[in-house]
Amino acid sequence: MNTTIIEREKISLNTPIFVEGLPGIGLIGKIAVECLISELEAKKFAELYSPHFPHQAVVLPDSKLRLVRNEFYYHKGNQDFIFLTGDTQVPPTDSYGHYAVVQEILDFLADYEVKEIYTLGGYSTGGKEVEEPKVLGSGTSAALLEKISGIDPLLVLREDIGAAIVGASGLLLAEGKLRNLEGVCLLGESSGSVIDPKAAKAVIHSLSKILGIEITLDVLESRIKESERMINELQELQEQAAEKEKMRERRKDMEYIR
Amino acid sequence: MNTTIIEREKISLNTPIFVEGLPGIGLIGKIAVECLISELEAKKFAELYSPHFPHQAVVLPDSKLRLVRNEFYYHKGNQDFIFLTGDTQVPPTDSYGHYAVVQEILDFLADYEVKEIYTLGGYSTGGKEVEEPKVLGSGTSAALLEKISGIDPLLVLREDIGAAIVGASGLLLAEGKLRNLEGVCLLGESSGSVIDPKAAKAVIHSLSKILGIEITLDVLESRIKESERMINELQELQEQAAEKEKMRERRKDMEYIR
Amino acid sequence: MNTTIIEREKISLNTPIFVEGLPGIGLIGKIAVECLISELEAKKFAELYSPHFPHQAVVLPDSKLRLVRNEFYYHKGNQDFIFLTGDTQVPPTDSYGHYAVVQEILDFLADYEVKEIYTLGGYSTGGKEVEEPKVLGSGTSAALLEKISGIDPLLVLREDIGAAIVGASGLLLAEGKLRNLEGVCLLGESSGSVIDPKAAKAVIHSLSKILGIEITLDVLESRIKESERMINELQELQEQAAEKEKMRERRKDMEYIR
Amino acid sequence: MNTTIIEREKISLNTPIFVEGLPGIGLIGKIAVECLISELEAKKFAELYSPHFPHQAVVLPDSKLRLVRNEFYYHKGNQDFIFLTGDTQVPPTDSYGHYAVVQEILDFLADYEVKEIYTLGGYSTGGKEVEEPKVLGSGTSAALLEKISGIDPLLVLREDIGAAIVGASGLLLAEGKLRNLEGVCLLGESSGSVIDPKAAKAVIHSLSKILGIEITLDVLESRIKESERMINELQELQEQAAEKEKMRERRKDMEYIR
Repeated sequence: MNTTIIEREKISLNTPIFVEGLPGIGLIGKIAVECLISELEAKKFAELYSPHFPHQAVVLPDSKLRLVRNEFYYHKGNQDFIFLTGDTQVPPTDSYGHYAVVQEILDFLADYEVKEIYTLGGYSTGGKEVEEPKVLGSGTSAALLEKISGIDPLLVLREDIGAAIVGASGLLLAEGKLRNLEGVCLLGESSGSVIDPKAAKAVIHSLSKILGIEITLDVLESRIKESERMINELQELQEQAAEKEKMRERRKDMEYIR
Repeated sequence: MNTTIIEREKISLNTPIFVEGLPGIGLIGKIAVECLISELEAKKFAELYSPHFPHQAVVLPDSKLRLVRNEFYYHKGNQDFIFLTGDTQVPPTDSYGHYAVVQEILDFLADYEVKEIYTLGGYSTGGKEVEEPKVLGSGTSAALLEKISGIDPLLVLREDIGAAIVGASGLLLAEGKLRNLEGVCLLGESSGSVIDPKAAKAVIHSLSKILGIEITLDVLESRIKESERMINELQELQEQAAEKEKMRERRKDMEYIR
Repeated sequence: MNTTIIEREKISLNTPIFVEGLPGIGLIGKIAVECLISELEAKKFAELYSPHFPHQAVVLPDSKLRLVRNEFYYHKGNQDFIFLTGDTQVPPTDSYGHYAVVQEILDFLADYEVKEIYTLGGYSTGGKEVEEPKVLGSGTSAALLEKISGIDPLLVLREDIGAAIVGASGLLLAEGKLRNLEGVCLLGESSGSVIDPKAAKAVIHSLSKILGIEITLDVLESRIKESERMINELQELQEQAAEKEKMRERRKDMEYIR
Repeated sequence: MNTTIIEREKISLNTPIFVEGLPGIGLIGKIAVECLISELEAKKFAELYSPHFPHQAVVLPDSKLRLVRNEFYYHKGNQDFIFLTGDTQVPPTDSYGHYAVVQEILDFLADYEVKEIYTLGGYSTGGKEVEEPKVLGSGTSAALLEKISGIDPLLVLREDIGAAIVGASGLLLAEGKLRNLEGVCLLGESSGSVIDPKAAKAVIHSLSKILGIEITLDVLESRIKESERMINELQELQEQAAEKEKMRERRKDMEYIR
């Protein structure tokens, strides 16, 4: 039993650029890629399932359910694109699974003759509030790094030698380099909150400059507003849950004291 | 070394419906399926062993012991059935093992031309007491979901989009869907106590309505009474154990203070 | 890379009885089997290495080192024996590894036409002091269980239905049963101290009655004395270590306060 | 997907001696081998990648990034050498991965007809300060152990029978012994600080005596100074981080109180 990619549509693309945004810090990469998919009206064409993902189904509208998965989208245009997003990454306790899934993705991308990769995600400041999030850039190609240098005032090239880029955003580029793919990793600074659309906006800003894509800010802003409403709801729910948990703990203590 | 199913009896079934109830929240699925097995006098015909199960033998009557396992039962009638229950599921830390066992089960079901799956389990309210447990329904087929809608006042179709269904109850349906099986997941609301026969009763109620099976309530009630006695005994044992543990901890503290 | 057994000597045995005593609760099984090996002057003839064992070498006399391993010993006599003991079991977090190693052992035993298995270990009372340890017996064959019933006043046949026998002592018998091997598990009651030679003595007592072996009590007693000295040393070392750890913790606290 | 070694240069060596120094206690082995590489101007010729390593890329100078890996270096001279160092070992929770990587390394060394192995690392005193670190020696060959006995006043042959040597330093020797390789493990005593160049210096001292290599102490001392500066910086950073963490925790507490 292995990680498998099921192609739902047979497509032909012209040396597409690959952009990854899977769940991670602040859901930044996921939000950013979903914005791009929505803006470019990209279409889903493949699904990735893995025994290294959590052993879960997810509830959909109309009480439907399906397996957790990652999804590939494509866009045909002046420049073709493949986008990757999804419900989950492999859990951080399963390094082997992370490598296995990334290998499968790179094999799949080879079929489409992808040469250039952009991975999007977040960079945790460890709780420190971030007023105006920067985007931290690093990459596997001197030429690409030179190209992106100075292209966006928000974008800062990383100088923290020895720092780790954990998960798909790091592995896709680093494993890709061993297969002669070139790419760039863009991480939006975040205090580490559950959802950080502001950092996602910064990442989209940098990526759209690099790729020369126009993103209508209206759409983006409305998505951010929506996300912020979601965050607030989520935080309220979490606070309520924490409050209840505390109440329950206290009650338990009292039961023991009794 | 792989997950293996040993068939103890060669049987022939007529497009049987598959019903799963493995240990989980409140043992609800397990109790429910065991009730059905008892009511329909279903017979064991196969055993599933897996290296992903806990590395344990269990003590049986007469000081016998055997490996932990899952068990398949069958019932022949107007409608044929295969039931699955057992000692254990794969531990939650082993996602890969969950996928492996579920694949093996689905391969086995394919041999019997199963087309329809019902998975039974519990839905934890996170400690909140549940006076009259509802049954939360979701599924992989619009037709089945329409069929069960309104069939039982206890049964509520899920609207919590994005919620996770963890373990065999979710995976069997979601992996099954990728193989064109249709199915429904029925989860009884539970405060999360160790054994919850009341929630199991609700699940049986909904399932018997859906499948058109008559379940004598007398048998069910006596089983619930028995379960409740077991719970009480278990809770007393746990409280005693917790008390002893506290005493021991205190003694330890005092040894250190001394 | 797999679990492998390296045979250091080619031997031929006459339907030997297999006796396992690997490290576990109170080192009871290990001490018991080592006593038997010493008494019967059994000879090592095979070593088992596994990637599921801890990734460790152990220091030997003369500053030598070797891989952690299990060891097979044999004894030829009126009744031939194979004994298994060793440095370690697979860690409890690796269920899959436990199954893998046990399969390898059973494959190996099949080559020697083993039909009867005795597994030795400890049964934790959860800290409760045990004045005169009993031996808890269970097994996979009605005939064997009848044979051992009443053979030794120390030996009690288990009635705790549903209890788990964790690790090699349980798995070897339970997996063995699936291969038509018969066997008995003997667990010495123990408060759970690091080394429990008194419980080991009880297990040896029961096993020697069952197998009709004479064990000179002098040798046993001197081994127990030795073990008790080791325990005391170990406990002193542990207390010293705990004391030091506390001192260090306090010092750390003070550094933070400063 | 497996552990793989990519050879970047085809070289031919004359029964080289292998010296391993991967990250571990106090980074002692890694610092020691890096000193040797620098002194002997050894050249990198191969890289080892493993799905058992952390799923991380690391940031390099010029914002480049690459996969975490181990690296092989060679030196040709009167005595040829292969050195192994790297970013990481397999995490301690993945015993299987440790064995897998060590097997791959030993297979690779067999191609170069390596017969003699030295593994370098640290020995934690459990926090106890070490004024003048000793080097603890053990090995797999009586002849080698006799050779190194008394060769360096800092070097003490181990007498702590039953002690464990965890990780690559132990496994390479112990697995190597099963393949008829001979070797010695040299562990510098360390209180367990993050970086311990003093202990690394002691290890280099012993190894250079054993191998008859001249190491210019000036270079070594400047490296130690540099390391000590790094330690101080690191400790300051850690203290700042701990301080911040405490502040954050307090703030959290206050939020809950509010």
